[in-house]
Amino acid sequence: MSKPLILVTNDDGMNAPGIRSLVETARQFGEVFVVAPNSAQSGQGHAITIEDPLRLHRVEVFEGIESYECSGTPVDCVKLATNILLKDRKIDLCVSGINHGSNASINVLYSGTMSAAMEASMEGINSIGFSLCDYSFDADFSAAKVYAHQIIAETLEHGIPKGKLLNVNIPNLPLQQIKGTRICRQGEGRWDEKFQEGLDPRGQKYYWLTGSFVGESNSLLSDHFALENGYVAIVPIQHDLTNFDAMHTLHHLQFDRPNPSVH
Amino acid sequence: MSKPLILVTNDDGMNAPGIRSLVETARQFGEVFVVAPNSAQSGQGHAITIEDPLRLHRVEVFEGIESYECSGTPVDCVKLATNILLKDRKIDLCVSGINHGSNASINVLYSGTMSAAMEASMEGINSIGFSLCDYSFDADFSAAKVYAHQIIAETLEHGIPKGKLLNVNIPNLPLQQIKGTRICRQGEGRWDEKFQEGLDPRGQKYYWLTGSFVGESNSLLSDHFALENGYVAIVPIQHDLTNFDAMHTLHHLQFDRPNPSVH
Repeated sequence: MSKPLILVTNDDGMNAPGIRSLVETARQFGEVFVVAPNSAQSGQGHAITIEDPLRLHRVEVFEGIESYECSGTPVDCVKLATNILLKDRKIDLCVSGINHGSNASINVLYSGTMSAAMEASMEGINSIGFSLCDYSFDADFSAAKVYAHQIIAETLEHGIPKGKLLNVNIPNLPLQQIKGTRICRQGEGRWDEKFQEGLDPRGQKYYWLTGSFVGESNSLLSDHFALENGYVAIVPIQHDLTNFDAMHTLHHLQFDRPNPSVH
Repeated sequence: MSKPLILVTNDDGMNAPGIRSLVETARQFGEVFVVAPNSAQSGQGHAITIEDPLRLHRVEVFEGIESYECSGTPVDCVKLATNILLKDRKIDLCVSGINHGSNASINVLYSGTMSAAMEASMEGINSIGFSLCDYSFDADFSAAKVYAHQIIAETLEHGIPKGKLLNVNIPNLPLQQIKGTRICRQGEGRWDEKFQEGLDPRGQKYYWLTGSFVGESNSLLSDHFALENGYVAIVPIQHDLTNFDAMHTLHHLQFDRPNPSVH
């Protein structure tokens, strides 16, 4: 079997220590190809660029690894990788990250890192997003690399159920204190949002988003609970948002009905 | 009972005919409050603005309706509405749209319209996104308004199961040809993407996203199938992305395991 082709992307850009850690890990398994944004794209969710043209620039960042910077969002990076740069090749795995900061619980929805991984999954590629629960630039990725290595190895061996991908969050702990990996569900939680209000230099009012995340810890199966208890949290996620239980409820409430004027 | 407070938003901006149609419909049920982006935000998904401050400007667009333009994404609009503008009030319903263009199948993931509705749902507000399957500015919203009226009425009467919201897509047909409403699941599909390649005025290469959507029509329960057969498609969706079946599969594959060096 030929060496697997692994696409690496992220939302923090090419010069973030997190993507360097992921490239170093992934290259132990096969050929690595990098397409990452040329600017910080945290919080970009599943945004795509349709009103503007996109640019791709080849860069030399990782020795011996073909790498491109893209002017768009993380999802744009994956679309350009699959449709232009690697159009005629089979991508065996996409890994996104390692993000500087948690993408557990509802944070998955806002995350450019996870949306890039989901886009690859939607194109039929096995895909994993990795995040370390430390927002700082100087975060210590050494334990995260060990777990990324383990999970990439398992994924290349077994694959991931079709249409699914993995959201992997690693607690901000030294390797010796991490208790292992746990399969989890996406936890509930909410952002206790504050908008910092101020006046700009022209005296115009602005609002700047900030806040603190409040995770629900009462579900023993949640990613948030696992992280709080020293485990790496692995959540299998999907792009199908349907709630099947609610389909039944709405049917009983007769939300579906024929148009009385059509016969 | 006092009149319900209804938050209206969209991703096409305050001057799109689609939001006017929705405001006209919603005001028949209660007090309407509008917060919408000040620029086109299609394809923004669940993006939020964290690197830049946001602006809010009160505008007079709809007679007798308090309305604000926001410099950010559709999700930003909802966050500013709930945390600043309507901070001390209970919002009974959020309606987003009516979008110019389909948000059925996987399009829900890219949609600013649907992400705004989802953000409201995550804050505990009953929430519905409406889309008309016609991308043109001059689309005919008359049938869409009739069905928006019906579904808003049912939602105000019954509510929506907690943590869920409705993705409503309306076929581009005259009212008399629409067969009624159907409760559906999110259909599978994919974008057959093409990047238009060209040179900018400075001779630099660009890539501009385009393509055509290919919906899978072989699921009788899918929104795509319902729309193709002349029905309004109502999909109950959720923000919990967990795939529970895959949790079992990964457990059997031993993706979860203790750290051997921790005792």
